[in-house]
Amino acid sequence: MVSEEMIQLGTKRSVIREIFEYGNQRAAAIGRENVFDFSIGNPSVPAPPSVAEALRDIVENTDPVKLHAYSSAQGHYSVRKAITDYNNRRFGTTLDPDLVYMTAGAAASLAITFHALACKGDNFITFAPYFTEYKTFVNGAGCALKIVPARTEDFQIDFAAFESLIDAHTKGVIINSPNNPSGVVYSEQTIMRLAQTLKKRSAEYGHTIYLVSDEPYRDLAYGGVEVPCVFRYYDEVIQCYSFSKALSLPGERIGYIAVSDRAQDAKEIYAAVCGAGRALGYVCAPTLFQFLVERCVAERSDFSVYERNRNLLCSALEEYGFTCAKPDGAFYIFVRSPEADATAFCERAKKYELLFVPGDDFGCAGYVRIAYCVSTELIKKALPAFAKLAKEYGLQ
Amino acid sequence: MVSEEMIQLGTKRSVIREIFEYGNQRAAAIGRENVFDFSIGNPSVPAPPSVAEALRDIVENTDPVKLHAYSSAQGHYSVRKAITDYNNRRFGTTLDPDLVYMTAGAAASLAITFHALACKGDNFITFAPYFTEYKTFVNGAGCALKIVPARTEDFQIDFAAFESLIDAHTKGVIINSPNNPSGVVYSEQTIMRLAQTLKKRSAEYGHTIYLVSDEPYRDLAYGGVEVPCVFRYYDEVIQCYSFSKALSLPGERIGYIAVSDRAQDAKEIYAAVCGAGRALGYVCAPTLFQFLVERCVAERSDFSVYERNRNLLCSALEEYGFTCAKPDGAFYIFVRSPEADATAFCERAKKYELLFVPGDDFGCAGYVRIAYCVSTELIKKALPAFAKLAKEYGLQ
Repeated sequence: MVSEEMIQLGTKRSVIREIFEYGNQRAAAIGRENVFDFSIGNPSVPAPPSVAEALRDIVENTDPVKLHAYSSAQGHYSVRKAITDYNNRRFGTTLDPDLVYMTAGAAASLAITFHALACKGDNFITFAPYFTEYKTFVNGAGCALKIVPARTEDFQIDFAAFESLIDAHTKGVIINSPNNPSGVVYSEQTIMRLAQTLKKRSAEYGHTIYLVSDEPYRDLAYGGVEVPCVFRYYDEVIQCYSFSKALSLPGERIGYIAVSDRAQDAKEIYAAVCGAGRALGYVCAPTLFQFLVERCVAERSDFSVYERNRNLLCSALEEYGFTCAKPDGAFYIFVRSPEADATAFCERAKKYELLFVPGDDFGCAGYVRIAYCVSTELIKKALPAFAKLAKEYGLQ
Repeated sequence: MVSEEMIQLGTKRSVIREIFEYGNQRAAAIGRENVFDFSIGNPSVPAPPSVAEALRDIVENTDPVKLHAYSSAQGHYSVRKAITDYNNRRFGTTLDPDLVYMTAGAAASLAITFHALACKGDNFITFAPYFTEYKTFVNGAGCALKIVPARTEDFQIDFAAFESLIDAHTKGVIINSPNNPSGVVYSEQTIMRLAQTLKKRSAEYGHTIYLVSDEPYRDLAYGGVEVPCVFRYYDEVIQCYSFSKALSLPGERIGYIAVSDRAQDAKEIYAAVCGAGRALGYVCAPTLFQFLVERCVAERSDFSVYERNRNLLCSALEEYGFTCAKPDGAFYIFVRSPEADATAFCERAKKYELLFVPGDDFGCAGYVRIAYCVSTELIKKALPAFAKLAKEYGLQ
């Protein structure tokens, strides 16, 4: 009687959600502090203090009618300008505020972008391991999503496999670097070759293949690793950004779409973005948080905790004999399962109250995702459990 | 190269937007205070003081990690419970927090609801005059929208015309009372007959016809008029609510969908709502404003200004010889154009710096919408202009 497809989407619990619920049950049984739950990718560090200060100041000193009024659909101009000014200074780009569209976070950015680009019969391509909601959003826009298998040596791009999947109906390619779930940052070399490939194949088919760059983790990179700014390597870029991780504001739903000023049809793409936002019911991004990011665009949560966690966990895992992807960014380590079936490995880890997510959920079997956005205390306390698990597999 | 349909939606300026821009040009030329702009339906009264107090208190006294974290997709339970407790006390209903889904405002509520209900080949029906975005959202969900012509005697429902449009593929009916743009409130008699009709036709076709009740103006009714609570008259109701008008927070995007606990397939509908929210990229409603409405669910902006404006404007318009729909609610008066072409009437009104929106934009030719959510001062100042306009048409 109602949409079967939507019932499926609404009832099929994600594997992550299942593990999360299991974690809650264990916490009730043995105490939260004894469950080593590495399943959820939620920021664990607070928003920077400047966020609360700015919120107080904005509420205190702005006329409430003006503060809470509708903004234009694309967002307040001053907010968009603050964002492009900041990024242009930082990356030497020439982004245009009139090609920026404020959104209710990264998921909204992605759903709107796919609806804006999609024509009948189009497909999009992404690279395993990948955030599974891409499929939901791309399918929701009436397109197919094709997956390039993971290049497990280094989790960069398998270009041969990628090239074999591009066809005349490929509208766009989705990348996510720093990556959820692998934690890997695409190198400059990868981005350059990706750009070359897209140029070549666009020319071959006589139409543009867009690069949709999903960047919620852009500011989370460690050990001096630089995340290449894709606008500098390819013209046909649509960036989907969210402040969820940079400012630890995931629940507030604030982000943006930036269409490259160098895209050939930049204005048409932007118009389609505005149209898709309207069609999906996004009237404007929440205005208080628009004003907030205008003030706090250059601020960051204290990521030193994540870096400390990463260093601690990585050296320990290595010491215990585990193998993992080079964990340069985001707040995930992608560890090779010591047995072929990562789900079985996750089950066995539960004996030691260790909770991970099997890579199967991200299109990459044989690996597990460990989210280290937890307290450093919890990691320290969990290390003996990791050691026992390694020993059970005879890794050491 | 990108979606032509989305480019159209993103570039086609609405008539209201055109008039709004014209008003800005006139304001620049002759001063804002000399332009009588009645074109825009934005709350002009501030949020109640309790809103700023609650925002300050929440930001001050909540752990930022908890405050800004993702909520569950359907919204924090405590928030949903505060909403159903309040409404159940007020209306004697038995609404269930587990059938409430928090949204980013009324447009999101509507887009999600249509996607949740829509199956291939379905149609929805609404009643002129109607909010034109219904068509965008219903078409976006792949369905057709049929329009019942306005019953201009009283702007209640023309049941003969309505019945002739219902068919075996009708999935739902959309009502909006108090109505934008007519300002009319559906009487209890209208709602009872609507419920009877829907029951009869549902039985005839052997499937449910849902009632989608779009209620952003539910709390704006004047002169003691009661807005009937539709849950009490029909079981198959999906309410789309927004706090935009009640709390003067249109830019913050906070509202909800409530599926009636008496709907036969309530759980399936709710699951489909959750699925549609996910597919459209709504991860959760903004969390700070979720906590805010939990505290302020019973609060209201000071609507006495709107009521004063309505009384002032209505008696003046009547005195000048204009005819209008019974303006019991929202903040609109729907005035019959003294010439057949309402657009020509709007053009002529511009001579006196009076700006209205032609009813054609709401599927009802021969009428204009006057939005009185402006300052009482402006109305007082505009009255001589209305008098001159009436005189030009020989109304007095």
